[in-house]
Amino acid sequence: MSTVNKVLNTVTPKEVRIVDEFWTKYNDLVRQVVIPYQYDALHDRIADAEPSYAIQNFEIAAGRKEGQFNGFVFQDTDVAKWIEAVGYSLMTHPDAELERLTDQVIDLVAEAQGEDGYLNTYFTIKEPDKRWTNLADCHELYTAGHMIEAGVAYYQATGKKKLLDVVCRLADYIDTVFGTGEGQLRGYDGHQEIELALVKLYRLTGEQRYLQLSQFFIDERGQQPNFLEQEWEQRDRINFFVGKTNDINLQYSQAHVPVREQKEAVGHAVRAVYMYTAMADLAGLTGDTSLYQACQTLWNNMVHKQMYVTGGIGSTHHGEAFTIDYDLPNDSGYSETCAAVGIVFFAHRMLQIEAKGEYADVLERALYNTVIGGMAQDGKHYFYVNPLEVWPSACHHNPGKHHVKPVRQKWFGCSCCPPNIARLVSSLGQYIYSTNQDTIYTHLYIGGEAELTVGEQSVVIQQESGYPWNGATSFSFQLEQPQSFTLALRLPGWCKKASLTINGESIEYQSLVQDGYIYIQREWSVDDRVEWNMKMHVQVIHSHPRLRAASGKIALQHGPLVYCLEQADNGELISALSIDPAQSLTTRFDAELLGGAVVIEGTATRELTSDWDDHLYQDSPPTIQEQPFTAIPYFLWANRGEGDMAVWIRKN
Amino acid sequence: MSTVNKVLNTVTPKEVRIVDEFWTKYNDLVRQVVIPYQYDALHDRIADAEPSYAIQNFEIAAGRKEGQFNGFVFQDTDVAKWIEAVGYSLMTHPDAELERLTDQVIDLVAEAQGEDGYLNTYFTIKEPDKRWTNLADCHELYTAGHMIEAGVAYYQATGKKKLLDVVCRLADYIDTVFGTGEGQLRGYDGHQEIELALVKLYRLTGEQRYLQLSQFFIDERGQQPNFLEQEWEQRDRINFFVGKTNDINLQYSQAHVPVREQKEAVGHAVRAVYMYTAMADLAGLTGDTSLYQACQTLWNNMVHKQMYVTGGIGSTHHGEAFTIDYDLPNDSGYSETCAAVGIVFFAHRMLQIEAKGEYADVLERALYNTVIGGMAQDGKHYFYVNPLEVWPSACHHNPGKHHVKPVRQKWFGCSCCPPNIARLVSSLGQYIYSTNQDTIYTHLYIGGEAELTVGEQSVVIQQESGYPWNGATSFSFQLEQPQSFTLALRLPGWCKKASLTINGESIEYQSLVQDGYIYIQREWSVDDRVEWNMKMHVQVIHSHPRLRAASGKIALQHGPLVYCLEQADNGELISALSIDPAQSLTTRFDAELLGGAVVIEGTATRELTSDWDDHLYQDSPPTIQEQPFTAIPYFLWANRGEGDMAVWIRKN
Repeated sequence: MSTVNKVLNTVTPKEVRIVDEFWTKYNDLVRQVVIPYQYDALHDRIADAEPSYAIQNFEIAAGRKEGQFNGFVFQDTDVAKWIEAVGYSLMTHPDAELERLTDQVIDLVAEAQGEDGYLNTYFTIKEPDKRWTNLADCHELYTAGHMIEAGVAYYQATGKKKLLDVVCRLADYIDTVFGTGEGQLRGYDGHQEIELALVKLYRLTGEQRYLQLSQFFIDERGQQPNFLEQEWEQRDRINFFVGKTNDINLQYSQAHVPVREQKEAVGHAVRAVYMYTAMADLAGLTGDTSLYQACQTLWNNMVHKQMYVTGGIGSTHHGEAFTIDYDLPNDSGYSETCAAVGIVFFAHRMLQIEAKGEYADVLERALYNTVIGGMAQDGKHYFYVNPLEVWPSACHHNPGKHHVKPVRQKWFGCSCCPPNIARLVSSLGQYIYSTNQDTIYTHLYIGGEAELTVGEQSVVIQQESGYPWNGATSFSFQLEQPQSFTLALRLPGWCKKASLTINGESIEYQSLVQDGYIYIQREWSVDDRVEWNMKMHVQVIHSHPRLRAASGKIALQHGPLVYCLEQADNGELISALSIDPAQSLTTRFDAELLGGAVVIEGTATRELTSDWDDHLYQDSPPTIQEQPFTAIPYFLWANRGEGDMAVWIRKN
Repeated sequence: MSTVNKVLNTVTPKEVRIVDEFWTKYNDLVRQVVIPYQYDALHDRIADAEPSYAIQNFEIAAGRKEGQFNGFVFQDTDVAKWIEAVGYSLMTHPDAELERLTDQVIDLVAEAQGEDGYLNTYFTIKEPDKRWTNLADCHELYTAGHMIEAGVAYYQATGKKKLLDVVCRLADYIDTVFGTGEGQLRGYDGHQEIELALVKLYRLTGEQRYLQLSQFFIDERGQQPNFLEQEWEQRDRINFFVGKTNDINLQYSQAHVPVREQKEAVGHAVRAVYMYTAMADLAGLTGDTSLYQACQTLWNNMVHKQMYVTGGIGSTHHGEAFTIDYDLPNDSGYSETCAAVGIVFFAHRMLQIEAKGEYADVLERALYNTVIGGMAQDGKHYFYVNPLEVWPSACHHNPGKHHVKPVRQKWFGCSCCPPNIARLVSSLGQYIYSTNQDTIYTHLYIGGEAELTVGEQSVVIQQESGYPWNGATSFSFQLEQPQSFTLALRLPGWCKKASLTINGESIEYQSLVQDGYIYIQREWSVDDRVEWNMKMHVQVIHSHPRLRAASGKIALQHGPLVYCLEQADNGELISALSIDPAQSLTTRFDAELLGGAVVIEGTATRELTSDWDDHLYQDSPPTIQEQPFTAIPYFLWANRGEGDMAVWIRKN
């Protein structure tokens, strides 16, 4: 176990302007399509989609309208995440009209805030006397946390303090309600989120109370007597969603034991990773080694025992939760988009404590596969659940798979995922680099320009990259005068062969590698050009023999991308196909495929149904026939209508 | 499609005395253990088991006790099925003490009957004014049907009329309530059962009204306007179990269209097969070709598209139901024991219309694998759900598998399955033979003696059989004088090689085969001895390429028995094993294994976890190692503690 001995500086999205063949398209999509679309969705203006009611709730709470609260108890968060995404977008792409619309929304939010700082439309409209009586189920602090994140991002983007003031008042009020003092609640939320939000608010404002309040929530969690259990008893064991219950599942909220004693990722996956994120934040900020070690233990369990090859987590829709080690069903799991977003958060925080290749590898895996796979190429359709195998008819007719949708949906009643993708993509800049006293770390290969601070120096770094389609990447710098610092290039876990040149001169990088990063120390000048070429090849991925759902199967990966076979390319019934892993698999850039993508091609063997008679079982094998196959990146699946899809393919 | 052109005579269990190496043990178990155990269970005397309350409910309804109704709305049926099982048992094994106890139970049942003939403890105790207001959910006619079956069986066994009179009064009363007349309900039960029971009552009493009432229920089902839907609207859309509902699932009760228009097996699997059984009964009795053709259509869909290799049906625990063609998940399906019992009923009724090998093959498959697999070798533990693959930890910790129990349970709150096994095993004699004017059909190879009527003749047939461990079977006859008739021996679908001798003289049976039966016409005498030796071999079973859950896998079968691999023999993690189907597999009778059983042995390849590092995924395959494997009959699984089990094994 490592201790907290060096902590990197986090880069804000404002410092990084992405100009990248791959990501500029996503950024544009989020800015031009997703944010306006979600604005309409929040205002219930999308035909045929489930209504959101989120803005309407604020209008009622603000007294502008009469009416009832509608939607989930945490419906406010969709507005908060949208404002946060807008904030990130405005940081790099100012847009006066969008800012005007957002200011109007913020005015509305501010009007909905109580005199005392309280802000939550559900309780304000519907149960004003029930504040803080059901933290387990009602997401009050979770909802507050999202608004705090929005306030921070919008201030960073625009310098406008209105929403920041709102959330500071909210945080100040919460700080009076919770604590160990007389009359205070010694509790925490059922759904973690405020903990990481308060860290952001602390970083921005420097106000120690916010950091301490975050630490309080983390430290109290799971202590005895158990707050959530006591609260539940006081409510006569009434659960907000299902009524009277016989027991309370504390693991579901990671409140079964104190966080430092938790050894395995359990319960609701999004709650878990949001909590781990805050734990890593706090460990980095305070140097709390026991907290970092808890993060490492939980990381190792999650990543090495409970994570899909696509970087998704959550094996069951029951409680949107982890189950047990090695239980990763392909066709009935959960792998919620929000949980993959949360993995990006957690991995990023861990990277700030230690620059370890594995943290970045997992960040990249979640980002390039599940997170962006959660959104359609049109920016208007989303997955909440990200299966690794789909048989559409079974999704429609087997109730055990009702949560698995074979095509992305317009909007959800519980629509946490779409704005979560939007805010991640629009803030992607912050995940590319970190710095410390003497080093620039490159975690992701994404083109653009960043203004970074290395020690006392300012460095503008420019990156170009063929990622994720190829690994040809180059760096140059804008420097007033030659400067001495270390450039730490991430060596991705998937990369077995690469070449590094500086100004055309080949560098033996192998001896410079430490824990997944190549450290190049020199005096850099404005003419220097680093060419870092990671050779991408098709990797045949095997799974741990305990991963039963993938036994006897292989997955294909190329660079950071996990691939899948879809019906559109390979015919129906992907399960009848098998692949010889020893064959030579080829890649090709298909410019026609969904905006252009590298596909993997080879030969598969298909079990034929054509000459099988009308029985289910027989004592001779089916006839087999060879056919070419095409695998496409997983994140692109289900953009061509409904059909079979599988990541794990039988090997022969 | 065949028409109804010949109908065989059903044999009653009373006509057949089983003396058989394999089945005598089961019969003894049911008689000596299961029936007494279930008597105690119905009286709530089993420690640590869920209470039944079934007898107590009758005591309250009879006015002998004060108290509340407890248990399911159909709890009475457990008593009925127990009496029925006792009836069958007494037919061949008179037992004065058991008969005395049963007479007491029958006295109690009779006391609980209303003046008008109504008999149902739930409605009598709890909602006397709500009779016949919720046929969809409340199983009133289903409950009546089970008591009718009990009355028939107990009368046939003992000649005692008390319960028969009770159920005739009950049926007479029902006949006044339901019908097309003024003030009558033009309806039917949500859960079919009374239809087949009324046929039994008709066969015993000759009372045409019972046959007509059965036909009425079958004919009305699914007609427009839909009775269940109208009733639901009249109840303000209240469902008995879940309260107010937005819609009613008519497919669940096979009431979506008239039965003759149903093309696919849908909905609750037990309801379906009970209904199909009655349809076949009626088709055979009335010569209704359209009804028989509907049976054939539904049979073909169920058997050729929706049946597990173990003879189980029901792919989801949601509604204990069929899903869609080829959707047969191994580790999360349902395959309820009662549904397999129902398959035996349905197949048996189809066999009486046409002696087709497939009907008997399916009967045998369900009986020898799922039905007897539903009961532990101690007779005191039962499966409700019969999975084809079990990973115990996932059953305990993945809520999507909460219904799959890795070991048999003592009793269930909803305990339909244990008494269903008991009544089937104790009435097994009736499934072995059928006769018609000139032929004795042997459907099952089970030793013992039967007194049969062939045309006008009486024939005592004696069978000895090594089934299911080997196919050595012999027949002889007790005849006053030589008699001319046809002996039709079933040629099982699994049997590829056999020999037939009569009095030592070899017979070329191939030319005598018709639709799965070998027809041997001759004048038989008391000295004749037929030796019919079906050569059992290990069959490697492949599945239809559309059966995704078994793709790339094989199952092993020996004679009628499907095999499985268990952790007890093969180590943990069966999914890491694969088998070369081309190898020579051997069989051995292991006298020590659970009372003795033929095991299948061979060599498997295991993916090792020992040298795999702490990651889930890597780009090189796991190390493999050969190990011997042992497969045991599926019906014997989970008799040696909790562990991994799988029927479908990966092939390499």
